[in-house]
Amino acid sequence: MSELALISAIRQALAEPGEHVVRWVGDDAAVVRSRPFAVTSIDTVVDGVHFTLDSHSPADIGHKALAAALSDLAAMGAQAGEAYVSLALPEGFDGGPTLELTVAMAELAERLGVTIAGGDVVRADSLIVTVAVTGWGELDSELIGRDGAKPGDFVGVTGELGASAAGLLVLGGAGQGLSAATALAERHRRPTPRLEAGRALATAGATAMIDLSDGLAGDARHIATSSGVRLEIDLACVPMATGVEEIARAAGREASELAATGGEDYELLFTLAPERWKEATEAAGVALTRLGRVVAGEGLELSGGPGELRGYEHL
Amino acid sequence: MSELALISAIRQALAEPGEHVVRWVGDDAAVVRSRPFAVTSIDTVVDGVHFTLDSHSPADIGHKALAAALSDLAAMGAQAGEAYVSLALPEGFDGGPTLELTVAMAELAERLGVTIAGGDVVRADSLIVTVAVTGWGELDSELIGRDGAKPGDFVGVTGELGASAAGLLVLGGAGQGLSAATALAERHRRPTPRLEAGRALATAGATAMIDLSDGLAGDARHIATSSGVRLEIDLACVPMATGVEEIARAAGREASELAATGGEDYELLFTLAPERWKEATEAAGVALTRLGRVVAGEGLELSGGPGELRGYEHL
Repeated sequence: MSELALISAIRQALAEPGEHVVRWVGDDAAVVRSRPFAVTSIDTVVDGVHFTLDSHSPADIGHKALAAALSDLAAMGAQAGEAYVSLALPEGFDGGPTLELTVAMAELAERLGVTIAGGDVVRADSLIVTVAVTGWGELDSELIGRDGAKPGDFVGVTGELGASAAGLLVLGGAGQGLSAATALAERHRRPTPRLEAGRALATAGATAMIDLSDGLAGDARHIATSSGVRLEIDLACVPMATGVEEIARAAGREASELAATGGEDYELLFTLAPERWKEATEAAGVALTRLGRVVAGEGLELSGGPGELRGYEHL
Repeated sequence: MSELALISAIRQALAEPGEHVVRWVGDDAAVVRSRPFAVTSIDTVVDGVHFTLDSHSPADIGHKALAAALSDLAAMGAQAGEAYVSLALPEGFDGGPTLELTVAMAELAERLGVTIAGGDVVRADSLIVTVAVTGWGELDSELIGRDGAKPGDFVGVTGELGASAAGLLVLGGAGQGLSAATALAERHRRPTPRLEAGRALATAGATAMIDLSDGLAGDARHIATSSGVRLEIDLACVPMATGVEEIARAAGREASELAATGGEDYELLFTLAPERWKEATEAAGVALTRLGRVVAGEGLELSGGPGELRGYEHL
């Protein structure tokens, strides 16, 4: 398939753009009717680093690359708008897999109300997918950074943790035959960005927010550093995804370690004044779990987990 | 240099953001105060495909990657705003060259009033730079696509052509010692996007516009196809950059072939009603040259060049 034929096939695979999109694929640039604040992030995944073609189908990779980029918009409380996708394709990764990747990305985009509005296709030595995403907000004050956590705030998290790390262990061969194995592998390969929860938490007064891409311990530290506060987190409170304990045991690992240090759960970690907690739980559309609190000071205190995690306090 | 140290050093190298930038590097996403229309493009350059590390310094690559992306905004008549940069770095391309690349990009950005507002750094097998750029416009009608050319319009071009293709020949060893060689190689390595001219042409009523990244023949065809018209272009009218004839002769090539088929001049090709031509030339801030006209029909007619170019009419 020639590059032009491939681009044409990709274009066919994309859903029609949202009505705020004035120009899209096929011009020098896309033109989008704005809302007051644009929220933009760029994210790259590389074969052999962020995924492997052995354990991920082209569709998995397309889904995951877009989901990971959109998760950054969720963490700001933005409404997701458009995605711009650059595909660097190695020899042998031709029309078939490229379309499979694109179709999966287009399906996730459509489900989340996102328009894939532009892109680029180039040749390279290995498969690399870069996704730039733009979201929108009406009020500056409802777009949440990492820097607003205040002593006295609760620390909370959406959903359940550990699924992605356990799923990665499954892809590596652990826990085969266990009932949770397939579902956890799927959660590693097909994460869902918490866009609705992010917007609800922003509206409900989250003071700081981050998506769990590097893992709870590392990402909590980012909030602590940016906000100039100390986060106290009790790992015994972590909402563990179903089957994580089982897979961890089969792999000779601790579930709480997976939940604290495994990346790519793409849940949201946030801080919030205690008096807003009830409102937030009613609005979030997903379970919220309180993990601890914000105090004056700096850094991160992890309690309730295995001893080796204490090292994370000094990363 | 660790990844965190590198990211910190990159951040130091960036200029302070424009005042419309509310949040930037260091959060999950950048937040920018919008204008009514957002104009966005993404562009990837790959070592061995779009440049080689043998002939381009890290600074050249940083400059060129940003310039190429911004050229798409120029072609829309947008005001350039922000850039988001993903760097895929191979083994051995470490802190020093990465900073050199970033500093050159930051210098070009500052010169053009662009804020580098976010990015990503990953490991890969070869050097790949992806730049997503966002520009802004007040009026939909002043953002120019490829689809508005009308029979009777003039076809015009900014600046001079052939410099980049001749510069590439110089980098390949042709014309060494000729007086123009160094300057042409520099124009290949360090193109300047025509942002001001693009905005002026948009305001002056350009009906279609495209940047010359693939070459005059190919890009003219894009306008013809998108607009549903025929473009008649006389290659004898092409404004040839100084020294292109000389280098072409040394390399056994035709200058008009370089000007017509060589990519990466990043000049703007546009169509415009004849009665707006005078206004456009006064506003553009760069020489405009009339290359031909738009007629009813389809495709492209190239006259005044060497015979082998006629094949481009049927590409």
